[in-house]
Amino acid sequence: MATNRNESRHRALAAELEAMIEGGAFRAGERLPSTRVLARSKGASVATVMQAYESLAERGLVEIRARSGYYVRGRVRAARKEERREHATLPPEIIAVSDLVFSVLEQIRDRQVVPLGSAFPSPAYFPLPRLAQDLARAARRMDPWRTVEDLSPGSRELRQQVAKRYALHGVSTAPEEVVITSGALEALNLCLASVARAGDVVVLESPAFYGALQAVERLGLRAVEVRTDPVEGLDLGELDGAIRRHPVRACWLMPNLQNPLGATMPEAKRRELVRLLARHGVALVEDDVYAELGFGEPIPPAKAFDEKGLVLHCGSFSKSLAPGYRVGWCLPGRFRQAVERAKLMTSIATSVPAQEGIAEYLRQGGYDRHLRRLRRHFRDNAAKLRAAVLAGFPEGTRVSRPEGGYFTWLDLPRGVDAMTLHRRAVREGISIAPGPIFTASDRFAGGLRLNHGHPWDERMEKAVARLGKLARALD
Amino acid sequence: MATNRNESRHRALAAELEAMIEGGAFRAGERLPSTRVLARSKGASVATVMQAYESLAERGLVEIRARSGYYVRGRVRAARKEERREHATLPPEIIAVSDLVFSVLEQIRDRQVVPLGSAFPSPAYFPLPRLAQDLARAARRMDPWRTVEDLSPGSRELRQQVAKRYALHGVSTAPEEVVITSGALEALNLCLASVARAGDVVVLESPAFYGALQAVERLGLRAVEVRTDPVEGLDLGELDGAIRRHPVRACWLMPNLQNPLGATMPEAKRRELVRLLARHGVALVEDDVYAELGFGEPIPPAKAFDEKGLVLHCGSFSKSLAPGYRVGWCLPGRFRQAVERAKLMTSIATSVPAQEGIAEYLRQGGYDRHLRRLRRHFRDNAAKLRAAVLAGFPEGTRVSRPEGGYFTWLDLPRGVDAMTLHRRAVREGISIAPGPIFTASDRFAGGLRLNHGHPWDERMEKAVARLGKLARALD
Repeated sequence: MATNRNESRHRALAAELEAMIEGGAFRAGERLPSTRVLARSKGASVATVMQAYESLAERGLVEIRARSGYYVRGRVRAARKEERREHATLPPEIIAVSDLVFSVLEQIRDRQVVPLGSAFPSPAYFPLPRLAQDLARAARRMDPWRTVEDLSPGSRELRQQVAKRYALHGVSTAPEEVVITSGALEALNLCLASVARAGDVVVLESPAFYGALQAVERLGLRAVEVRTDPVEGLDLGELDGAIRRHPVRACWLMPNLQNPLGATMPEAKRRELVRLLARHGVALVEDDVYAELGFGEPIPPAKAFDEKGLVLHCGSFSKSLAPGYRVGWCLPGRFRQAVERAKLMTSIATSVPAQEGIAEYLRQGGYDRHLRRLRRHFRDNAAKLRAAVLAGFPEGTRVSRPEGGYFTWLDLPRGVDAMTLHRRAVREGISIAPGPIFTASDRFAGGLRLNHGHPWDERMEKAVARLGKLARALD
Repeated sequence: MATNRNESRHRALAAELEAMIEGGAFRAGERLPSTRVLARSKGASVATVMQAYESLAERGLVEIRARSGYYVRGRVRAARKEERREHATLPPEIIAVSDLVFSVLEQIRDRQVVPLGSAFPSPAYFPLPRLAQDLARAARRMDPWRTVEDLSPGSRELRQQVAKRYALHGVSTAPEEVVITSGALEALNLCLASVARAGDVVVLESPAFYGALQAVERLGLRAVEVRTDPVEGLDLGELDGAIRRHPVRACWLMPNLQNPLGATMPEAKRRELVRLLARHGVALVEDDVYAELGFGEPIPPAKAFDEKGLVLHCGSFSKSLAPGYRVGWCLPGRFRQAVERAKLMTSIATSVPAQEGIAEYLRQGGYDRHLRRLRRHFRDNAAKLRAAVLAGFPEGTRVSRPEGGYFTWLDLPRGVDAMTLHRRAVREGISIAPGPIFTASDRFAGGLRLNHGHPWDERMEKAVARLGKLARALD
């Protein structure tokens, strides 16, 4: 009985501490009360407090530092204080993603905030009224049995339409190979979970889409970040080295219009990437959500060169047609059954009317016309954003030349800190995406992702000028 | 270099073996080729083969049995061969769910199959045409910004409507406390992942909804199955014992119209359950998807008695209003931020038109009228199914008296094996849900869940008579 009371005692205390950490009473990197102080204030034994701390440490919430005490586990902000280390020779890291990502995501929901930090293009660019009509027609006509039959892997019609788009991009596939998901993020997460298990090592780009960092953290994987060139993408030499040094099970990469850099791997390099991974039996989760947004000739995705079924290609309609419908898909190669089952086990199916509505839109035609218009908007906005940055930002600022999509990447001059700029910009109602949200390392302190996926107007013009001024003040 | 070649060699071999297991070439419980045989046939060294097997064993796909060899990891079917053990004194188990669940799920998509094994009610009972109209109206009127603003935690309007339904069920809550999800299964999975981490112990009912067993397997948790009475639900004495014996972190329970038994915990017992768990600081994931389907006076859910925020209550429109829309929700108590973030990290949001369409339906009214009709259908069908079972099944068969929902539970006489009945029924185009899919133990070999959520007609009548005949032949 006594043991049981003790056990419930330290568990209650751990829950209380956890709630305080979650509620923000103690922040990442902060020191927690000493066992003695806490024991006194709670009328508990030191042993009980230690057990509570240890259980939180086991769960990754608290860090025990020898001869120093208990700390809220360091997130990105804390990690940045570490000394600079060599690329790719880093040991695989247990990743803890910053609250920062969530705060950046939160800001962009406020229409009053200038959405330069947004991860989404403007909803105004999408054919939502036409989609609403197609959705209405599909829903009215829908055979009630579809609600059972369209469970994972998804609507037959939509999978046919997706297979057709693949054909246009140089990938020959059958509808049976496609699994429909609730957006690409679900597809990516299901694919990663199907090829790697807790403790496994995966390769990410550096910088990487923060969703990949979060997935790695959530699944308890270890990550190796590999240098990524702003123009040609991932460094294959470093990748090869990483695979030789670590037991890499999978990569999560964006060979096309990489987020945040905008890098686009040339065709020959994509082919070489697939060959390299196949040689080592490493799976590739290919995030290709910007497949339809390239300004030039489309390059086939890595999936086009996949002979062994090791590439799990993920796409979405959210960035090119129907934001908010949450319809994406994947082509999981040899892991299809595992992905299909993972989908059945976690969300059963993707919203049936949303699937049928998009299938109806694609059947009716007009998607390519819409895409041409969308890309033209993005290209025009990118040029204007670039000009405004070059005019207003401090000398030495480097600006990417996007070949598609709606992100521009900036490298601020040495010494100008993107996090400081972010904090000052937020106060003036301007959101930006600072470099540190794209890595678990201490890199990209001077990196900045700006969104050119919103109509360019006076407000944008002014916001960029204001940002430039804030950055110059930090120079 | 040699080491690297070896490494990629055994990895390729492991991948090949995995593909064969996944493809069904080797089934659960089957012995795999010996290292010597495999080394010879592949022209590899015995060491390479052993490494390949060991990596599969590490990932839980293969079991190494001393002095016997390598086996495909045992699923439910294999586990049933183990000797019978005492309830609740079992050590927490690493769960491996059978392929059986997926094959039962697969069958019910075929309209030709009599859906007595289905997990869903007939789509014909739902106001899908009216919903289509409301969806169309909501989509046409939808402000494009909703596609960004309705990200997790979800549409403001829908959360208001959900909070109103809670008030009717005796739970006072605010829209801010509600997180919208892609169906209840996503809610349940996100909630469980927010309160337990790999290696943690959770309590499940015995028998349990197979989705809970799958979630426990997927998250690498250990489960203790606690005896559940077919009328009054979980045995609280055994629960208390389990918590005292094991470091239980959470329970996943259905106090209301438990799946598969149909058990409904009385109000006083729900109150006592919450008190017991609060005393030990154990979280309760409360699966309440049949909340609207009780035939009698509604009983408040466990959540109504939750003073510490330890109950994560999950609901859905899939079983009561809009199958296929994939809209559910949860009320995660003190774990709200963790659940919201988990949703943002895994699927970002629930389909916005689906959310807005259901909110519009609820605003327009008529939900309660629809529910009264739906419950009447289920009650009538349940009586007819019961009569047909009593008339046709072997003497000694026990049949539940459902107080709601669309499941009837049968206990077949000793010696009549539900799995054998299942296999014979499938051959005759009749699906049933055999007891073993609801447990990771060797129990419920004579259990059977039948669905009375489909219109009762001659085909049903005949199918039940036929099932009875098949069961009698096994008696």
